[in-house]
Amino acid sequence: MNFRNFKMIGYVIYGRGAFNQLDEIVQPNRKAGAPMVFLVDHFFEGKPLASRVPAKGNDKIIFVDVSLEPKTTYVDQIANQLKDEFGVVSGIIGIGGGSAMDLAKAVSLMMTNPGSSADYQGWDLVKNPGVYKAGIPTLSGTGAEVSRTTVLTGPTRKLGMNSDFTPFDQIVLDPELTANAPANQRFYTGMDCYIHCIESLTGTYLNEFSKSYGEKALQLCREVYVERDGWDATADDKLMMASYAGGMSIAYSQVGVAHAVSYGLSYLLGTKHGIGNCIVFDHLQDYYPEGVKEFKYMVDKNEITIPKNICANLTEEQFDKMIDVSMGMKPLWENALGRDWEQKMNRGTLRKLYERF
Amino acid sequence: MNFRNFKMIGYVIYGRGAFNQLDEIVQPNRKAGAPMVFLVDHFFEGKPLASRVPAKGNDKIIFVDVSLEPKTTYVDQIANQLKDEFGVVSGIIGIGGGSAMDLAKAVSLMMTNPGSSADYQGWDLVKNPGVYKAGIPTLSGTGAEVSRTTVLTGPTRKLGMNSDFTPFDQIVLDPELTANAPANQRFYTGMDCYIHCIESLTGTYLNEFSKSYGEKALQLCREVYVERDGWDATADDKLMMASYAGGMSIAYSQVGVAHAVSYGLSYLLGTKHGIGNCIVFDHLQDYYPEGVKEFKYMVDKNEITIPKNICANLTEEQFDKMIDVSMGMKPLWENALGRDWEQKMNRGTLRKLYERF
Repeated sequence: MNFRNFKMIGYVIYGRGAFNQLDEIVQPNRKAGAPMVFLVDHFFEGKPLASRVPAKGNDKIIFVDVSLEPKTTYVDQIANQLKDEFGVVSGIIGIGGGSAMDLAKAVSLMMTNPGSSADYQGWDLVKNPGVYKAGIPTLSGTGAEVSRTTVLTGPTRKLGMNSDFTPFDQIVLDPELTANAPANQRFYTGMDCYIHCIESLTGTYLNEFSKSYGEKALQLCREVYVERDGWDATADDKLMMASYAGGMSIAYSQVGVAHAVSYGLSYLLGTKHGIGNCIVFDHLQDYYPEGVKEFKYMVDKNEITIPKNICANLTEEQFDKMIDVSMGMKPLWENALGRDWEQKMNRGTLRKLYERF
Repeated sequence: MNFRNFKMIGYVIYGRGAFNQLDEIVQPNRKAGAPMVFLVDHFFEGKPLASRVPAKGNDKIIFVDVSLEPKTTYVDQIANQLKDEFGVVSGIIGIGGGSAMDLAKAVSLMMTNPGSSADYQGWDLVKNPGVYKAGIPTLSGTGAEVSRTTVLTGPTRKLGMNSDFTPFDQIVLDPELTANAPANQRFYTGMDCYIHCIESLTGTYLNEFSKSYGEKALQLCREVYVERDGWDATADDKLMMASYAGGMSIAYSQVGVAHAVSYGLSYLLGTKHGIGNCIVFDHLQDYYPEGVKEFKYMVDKNEITIPKNICANLTEEQFDKMIDVSMGMKPLWENALGRDWEQKMNRGTLRKLYERF
C-alpha cells in the first residue's frame, strides 16, 4: 500500500473582513516592476468588491468570464497576454468561485511552464512551480481553495492540472464575501460540497483522515441547509468552513456516481459543476438513498429549483459522448461501487439515467 | 480587527504503514554530503522502530532524552554538535511525542540561526528558515505536529520559538506507531488534546475555523475515551486525527486555565505537559464543570491514576514562583475568563488551587 503525500496550501487566513488584509498579505510577494494580477469573477464588475481589490502601480485586474467552466484555451490566452504585456508577473490572485480560483491556479502555472495548459492536463505533468498564487472564494462549496487540481476543459478532455505545484500559496477565507451571492447559485455550490461528502463517506477509498474532514463538512452543510431557517452571517461562516473541510477530505478519498455522471453533462452541454451535480444527484436514490432523501428535503426547504429535461433533445451520438466521458472516470466508479464496478454499471444503465435528467 | 495569517505544514501523509515511505519522502530533500539527522525518542532505543529508521550514508540517529521537556540548552547542544560534526545537514526528522518533535523543530532552526535558541523564545524572532524538517508522532494528542511553535524551557522562561519558520515541512501520520505506547502516557497525552479542546471551545477567542477543528477533535477524543471499550487500531487512527485537528484548532483560539496553571507546575517541578494538564484539570470543576465531569469519567473508565499531593512539600517561595509563571500567561487567562480576567483570578485563588494538587 502506498499513501499519497498530500501537499498543503501555504497560508490560510480566516475571518470576517480578512479581505482587508490582502494588500499587506501580498506585499512580501511583490517583485520589483512585476505586477500582481487579480483575476476577478466578472460577476463583481462594477460591484463594491471590485473597488476593494488592492491593485497599485502596474497591477492589473482582469474580470474573467466564468459563464462556462474554464477552458485550456482561455487559460493560455490570459497567460500569453500577461507574458506579452509584462514578461513576468509577481503573482496571480483569483477572486470568485471555483472557476475563478481554478483559472488563477492554471494561469500561475502557465507563467512558468512552456506550451499549452492542455499539455499538463493529468497527474504530475507540471514541471515548474508557478508564480505566487492566492485564492479568495466568494462562493463556498467547491473546495477549489485547497485542492491540488484545477478543473479545465481541454480539446480532448475535461481534466485538471493535478500536481504538487497546483495548490495555492495563500488562501483568504472571508465569509463576508459570500454574503451577497445569488441564492440558487449559492445552493448549487454548497451542494457540491454536500454531494462530495456523501460520495466520499460512503466510498471504498475512505480513511480516517478524509473521514474526519468529510464528517465535519457534512455536519456543517446540515447545520446550514437542514437545521437553520433563512440565511445569515453564521451560515456564511459555516459554509465557508464546510467547503474547506470538504476540499481537505478529498486528500484520501474520491467522489462517486454523481460526479462521474455530471462530468458527462458538463463536457457535452457545458453544464456548470454545482448545478450539474444537483441535476444528477436528484436521481441517484438507488446509489445514495439517505443522501438523496436529505438532498430533496434541502431543495424544498430552501425553495430551490433544479432544472429538468436538459437531455430531452439529445441525439444518439450525444448520449454516447456523455456515456464515454462518464465511463472513463474509473477511480470515481471504483470508489463508489468497488473494484468490480463494471459488473454494476454499464452503458445501458447509464443511458437510462441520462434520459431522466 | 486583524486576523492571523496561519502558516501551514508543507506536506502531510496519513496511513497505517506510511512510515515505510519515509525513505522515499526524504530523498528529494537530501543534499550531497549532508546527512539526514533523526532525533528519536529514547523510548525507542533498541526497539523495532529504531531499526526501521531509513538512515544511510553519513545519516545520524540521535536518541534524545525527553524525560524532561526540552530545554534551550539541550537544543543548542544538539545543534552545535551537528555543526561541529557535519557543518551542514540535509534535514532534521523528529520521531516521538511532542518533546521529540519540538526538539526537531528547534534544532532545525538553530542550524541556520546564530546564537542560542533562548534568543528566539517569543513571537516571530526567528530570522532565517531552518533546514528541512519533518515530524513523525508516536504519541497522539499534543498537536506539536502542526503547531507553529516549540515549547522550550529557557534560562528565564518556558516559551516557544513561535514563527512562520517553525512548522514542519512534512509530517508523517502513521497510527501504527502509536499502538505500543504505555497506556498511562497515551492517556495523559490524549487528554492534552481533550483539555485544549474544552479550553478553546469555551474560550472567548473562538471563531468558526477553530471551532470546526476543535469540535471534530473533541468528538474524536470522546469516541476513543468515552464510547469505546478497550484500545484497538481504530482508537489509534482516531486519536491521531484528534491530535491533528486539535493542533489546527489553535490557529484562531487559545488554551485556558488548565494550561496557564500547569505551566507553573512544569516550570518549577518539571512536570511533563500532558500529565500536568491532567493533574490541574481534575480540580477545575469551577471553570469547566461539564468538561471536568467527563474527564473524571474517562479517568475511571480507562483505569488511569492521576498523581496527587505533588505540591505537598513546597515552600512559600516555590508557590510564589509557580504563581508568577501562571499569572504571566495573559492571553490564556483572557481567553478563559474574558478581558476582565484580573477581576476573576488573583494570586490567592491560584495559591489555593495549587495547594490542592
